[in-house]
Amino acid sequence: MSDMTRHIHSAFDRDLEGIQAQIMKMGGLVETAIRDAARSLETRDEELAEQVRAGDKAIDALEDSLNDEAARVIALRGPQASDLRVVLSVMRMSANLERIGDLSKNMAKRTSVLTQFPPVNGSAKSLRRMAREVERMLKDALDAYIQRDAELARDVIDRDGEIDQMYNTLFRELLTFMLEDPRSITACMHLHFIAKNIERMGDHITSIAEQVVFVVSGEHPDKPRTKADRTSFDPAYSLDTDGE
Amino acid sequence: MSDMTRHIHSAFDRDLEGIQAQIMKMGGLVETAIRDAARSLETRDEELAEQVRAGDKAIDALEDSLNDEAARVIALRGPQASDLRVVLSVMRMSANLERIGDLSKNMAKRTSVLTQFPPVNGSAKSLRRMAREVERMLKDALDAYIQRDAELARDVIDRDGEIDQMYNTLFRELLTFMLEDPRSITACMHLHFIAKNIERMGDHITSIAEQVVFVVSGEHPDKPRTKADRTSFDPAYSLDTDGE
Repeated sequence: MSDMTRHIHSAFDRDLEGIQAQIMKMGGLVETAIRDAARSLETRDEELAEQVRAGDKAIDALEDSLNDEAARVIALRGPQASDLRVVLSVMRMSANLERIGDLSKNMAKRTSVLTQFPPVNGSAKSLRRMAREVERMLKDALDAYIQRDAELARDVIDRDGEIDQMYNTLFRELLTFMLEDPRSITACMHLHFIAKNIERMGDHITSIAEQVVFVVSGEHPDKPRTKADRTSFDPAYSLDTDGE
Repeated sequence: MSDMTRHIHSAFDRDLEGIQAQIMKMGGLVETAIRDAARSLETRDEELAEQVRAGDKAIDALEDSLNDEAARVIALRGPQASDLRVVLSVMRMSANLERIGDLSKNMAKRTSVLTQFPPVNGSAKSLRRMAREVERMLKDALDAYIQRDAELARDVIDRDGEIDQMYNTLFRELLTFMLEDPRSITACMHLHFIAKNIERMGDHITSIAEQVVFVVSGEHPDKPRTKADRTSFDPAYSLDTDGE
C-alpha cells in the first residue's frame, strides 16, 4: 500500500466514523421518540406528546445532513466495494429511521384525540408493551450495525414475527371491544392505527437489520419479507359478524 | 475536455439511460399494481387480486437490480455533483416504488377477506377513485423525472393534499357506517386499512416528486411535509359518541 493510498484510506475511515456517530445519534433520538410516544399515550400526558411531535424536526434534519454527508464522501473519496456498501447502507438506514420518527410523531398526535375518550380496557398498556419490544429491536439493530454483528441482526429480523403476533392479537381484541360497545368505535379506530404504526416500525427496523446483514456479508438476506399481518387473510379475523 | 473525459462521460450517460429505463419499467409495473388492486376490490375479482400479489416479486427484483446497478455505476464511474445526485435519487425512488408495490399487494390481499362480507355502501368505488388519482400522480411524477420538469413535480406534491382530503372524508364515512350498523365493523376496518394504504402511496409519490425537485434544483423542496391526515387531531373526527 502506498503512502497515498494509506492517506486516502484513513481519511475515508475518519469520514465514516463521523457518519456513524450521526447515525447513532439519530437512532438514539428515534428510540426516545418511540418510548415517549408510547408513554404519553398510556399516561395521557399531552405535554410529552407535544414534545415528541416537536422533536421530529431534529430527526428530519439529521437525515438531510446524513444524506448530504454521505454524498460528499462518495464524491470525494470514491469508495469501492465494501466501503461503498457501508456508505450506501447508511443512506437507507437513515431513511428508515426517519420513517420510524414519523410514525412515533403520528402516534403522539393521536394521544390528544384519545384523551377525549375513556380508556379502552388496557389497550394503551398493550400498545406500550409492543412499543417497548420495538424499541429493544431498534437498539439491537443499531448495536448490530456498529459491531458488524450479522447474527444479532438476524435475531432482530426473527423477532419482528413477535411484533406481528402482538399486533394480530390486539386487532382481534379491538374488534371485540367495538362489537361489544359501539361507543368505543372511534377510540378503537385510533388505537388500531397506533397498533398498525408500531407494527410498521417493526418492519422498518427489520429493514435496518437487513442492511446490517448486507453490509457484513455483501448479500441481501433471504426474502421472503412476507408480512405476518394475518388480519389480511386469516379467516379467524373475519369474525363472521353477519353470519356469512 | 480531453478525449478521455469525453469517453468516460458518455459511458456514464449510457449507464444512466439503462438505469432510467429500469426505473420506468418498475414504475409501469407499480402503476399496474395500483390499478389492478383497486379494480379487484371493486369487482371482487379474487383472481386479479392473486395476480397483483404474485406480481410484487418482479417489482422487488427490479429494486434489487437497480440498487446493484447504481452502486456499480458509482464505483466504476465516480460521478460528481449533479450526476451523483441523479444516481442517488434513483436509489431512493426505487425504494419508494417498492413500498408502493407492497401497499398494492396488501390492498389486493384484503380483497379476498372483503368478499366474505356484503359490500359497504359504495366504499369500494370511492377507494378506486382515490387509487386512480394516486396512479395519475405516479405517472406524472415519473414523467417529471424523465423530463426533469420541476414544475410538474411540484404540482404532484400539491395534489397529495387532495388524496389526504379524500381519505379524511372516507374515514368519517366509515365511522358513520360502523356506528349505524355494527355488523359492518369488520369490513369497515379492512376498508379503512385500504384507504390508509392508498393515502400512504400518495406520500411515497410525493417523496418521488421531491426527489425530482432535488435532482433538477439541487435543493430539497420546502418541508413541511406535515401530514394532512386530519383524523389524528381534528375534533370533528372524535364524533363525541360517548357524550364526553
